[in-house]
Amino acid sequence: MAYDFSLVSSKMKSSKIRELMKYASMPGVISFAGGMPDPDNFPFDDVKSIINNWDVKSSKIAMQYGTTNGYGALVEDIIKRMTTVKHINPEGQGVVVTTGGQQGLYLVAKIFLDPGDVILVEDPTFIGGMASFLSCQAQVVGVSLEDDGVNVDELETTFLSLKKAGKNVKFFYTIPNFQNPKGSTMSLGKRKKLYELSKKHNLVIIEDDPYGDLFYTGTSEDYLPVKSLGNDAPIIYIGSFSKVLSPGFRLGWIYADDIIIDKAALAKQSIDACSSSFGQVIASDYLKLGKIDDYLTKMRAVYSKKKNVMMEMITQYFPESVKVTNAKGGFFIYAKLPDGISGNALFLRTIKENVAFVTGEPFHTDPVTGDQHIRLSFSNSSDDEIKKGIKIIGDTITAMIKEM
Amino acid sequence: MAYDFSLVSSKMKSSKIRELMKYASMPGVISFAGGMPDPDNFPFDDVKSIINNWDVKSSKIAMQYGTTNGYGALVEDIIKRMTTVKHINPEGQGVVVTTGGQQGLYLVAKIFLDPGDVILVEDPTFIGGMASFLSCQAQVVGVSLEDDGVNVDELETTFLSLKKAGKNVKFFYTIPNFQNPKGSTMSLGKRKKLYELSKKHNLVIIEDDPYGDLFYTGTSEDYLPVKSLGNDAPIIYIGSFSKVLSPGFRLGWIYADDIIIDKAALAKQSIDACSSSFGQVIASDYLKLGKIDDYLTKMRAVYSKKKNVMMEMITQYFPESVKVTNAKGGFFIYAKLPDGISGNALFLRTIKENVAFVTGEPFHTDPVTGDQHIRLSFSNSSDDEIKKGIKIIGDTITAMIKEM
Repeated sequence: MAYDFSLVSSKMKSSKIRELMKYASMPGVISFAGGMPDPDNFPFDDVKSIINNWDVKSSKIAMQYGTTNGYGALVEDIIKRMTTVKHINPEGQGVVVTTGGQQGLYLVAKIFLDPGDVILVEDPTFIGGMASFLSCQAQVVGVSLEDDGVNVDELETTFLSLKKAGKNVKFFYTIPNFQNPKGSTMSLGKRKKLYELSKKHNLVIIEDDPYGDLFYTGTSEDYLPVKSLGNDAPIIYIGSFSKVLSPGFRLGWIYADDIIIDKAALAKQSIDACSSSFGQVIASDYLKLGKIDDYLTKMRAVYSKKKNVMMEMITQYFPESVKVTNAKGGFFIYAKLPDGISGNALFLRTIKENVAFVTGEPFHTDPVTGDQHIRLSFSNSSDDEIKKGIKIIGDTITAMIKEM
Repeated sequence: MAYDFSLVSSKMKSSKIRELMKYASMPGVISFAGGMPDPDNFPFDDVKSIINNWDVKSSKIAMQYGTTNGYGALVEDIIKRMTTVKHINPEGQGVVVTTGGQQGLYLVAKIFLDPGDVILVEDPTFIGGMASFLSCQAQVVGVSLEDDGVNVDELETTFLSLKKAGKNVKFFYTIPNFQNPKGSTMSLGKRKKLYELSKKHNLVIIEDDPYGDLFYTGTSEDYLPVKSLGNDAPIIYIGSFSKVLSPGFRLGWIYADDIIIDKAALAKQSIDACSSSFGQVIASDYLKLGKIDDYLTKMRAVYSKKKNVMMEMITQYFPESVKVTNAKGGFFIYAKLPDGISGNALFLRTIKENVAFVTGEPFHTDPVTGDQHIRLSFSNSSDDEIKKGIKIIGDTITAMIKEM
């Protein structure tokens, strides 16, 4: 049957990651592809015990529709955590609970973007963010991402020249902590500079922080959000429970000026009415019982160990001409391949040996630069898989260099 | 802080229902407002027992990200149920699991609608559907809804004249069973006529069926979807677990041509990546264990009794000049008030006596016609609340007539 789809839908294509994930999820494949939490350490026993302890009132709330903004108790818990752990001033700020961090990104796209509007992103950046912005027909402009975060001077220059050219620049999208895919972390100096730039030009910042609690060096104070620097700049913080509880509940949140929260909640009404009440009551109990802090302590050690195993193997088996970011947290190591080695070509060879990863191409605004990179996720694999898989990738790169 | 929102977001206003719900959810208020399931009969014990019985594999699937199309086992269960219970031919058809039925509506809006496109709706129709279509900047045109369903002749005339005027008519949105808000059910004759019309003009039908399993007279065979008539017409079926398990998991589905499913899944990727795995594993076990059939049998009796109590009270206390639909299923009774009595004025009086409902205005394309109606939901109230609340509404209408 022939259908007359919308313009956006006609142009929509399956993302590279999605196509590659088909290989990655095949039985027997060692996959460093998805940004998925460690399946062996989900806090399922805590979740089960929380549910088994619900009284009638809690179970009724969990099974019923909730308000679009989110379950009141959870909203309070989130604000409390944003205040005490992330040092964000709650004055004039509010929360809308979202269906995963991904919906937070979609909602900001929906409330800000008209077709042709420009947004600025770190280059490379998260594919899911780009997908949301592109689905609202934005024009995406990249700004160089360095090892200590985005080049803030370049950001300002780019912003000003776009404005001068009459473009409607709606926001800058950043992942300051353990960036996806690069693994880089924005320095405090750059955070301050970015805050001032946002304030000076009234440039909205979308601060995406799904990994901020998963640091493997330093303390929480070393990774405070840009938004913690004050409420005089228009900064919209997006959080997620996917990496610190479970992605299976689809829960995240937007924390921003009340006016943004009102708009986002209005948009959410027509998108899914409300997020899972069942998940929200679990998340609220989980926070109240302090389970999250115990879990984070445990998981920092688990992921840190996995990352160290991967880094050791990279040191041992990758040629020196491969440059990698040693991430201070999060799930990813990003590798720049030697000149002349294509990430896609590498993938096509390692997948024959049942090893998968994501090629850099879809993360970059320039596909040629992108193809010089690969993203390796260590979060979802056992030590043995990491050892076996990284050796195969390293050996393949070495072979490809020899063949050049 | 001043923000430069998108065109759609600037125009978005909070829905009437949302504003009224603020009153409706106040303590002590008897509310016939929301279309919410009966909180006293959620199958929470079954859900708890399902979770407690999960093996390690199931718990890992439930806590992890899933594929955008949905948990494979649940997708199979849904197709099986669509085939055996709803008699839809599965050939060439597929499923995408959605975050509630509401997301099903949003996804079809997203994949079909460009700004200015026209869609046809039953007049009155579901506010949540309209909200999705309007958020994609569609122009909504109403077609008369009669006691036995939409006027199909008028639908065809309207469609043809819009086409002739150069309009891009993208689809017709219908709720054939126990319509929201009217409570009406489309006759088999009209279903056949609608199917033929859809086939003849290649007019896409969005068939929304959240209440189809909740009939209070006849059998399942009396309420088969329009889509069960064949796959030669472009019919997109939207189902929901919100009324037959729990809205708290936010689970629904789209069942349609594979090409539609592919487009919907692509759109969903950027909206929330996937629906709750936790809820999906529960729903799948729930279907597999046959729990849904036991639950439906029970709930048909529960809701039927509530409806009968409300109808008896209406007969006793509403003036004869109020005309009501005696719904054969679902959650709603729709009342047309006597000439000169405004639904909004009535609401403002009954809310002072702590009784809430939804006024007809937001459901209709013409607000004046809309204000002659009120929607009474019996699903969410006890017998005593129904008795007390309906008497207050009836007495108030009587008083308003006397004052005229």
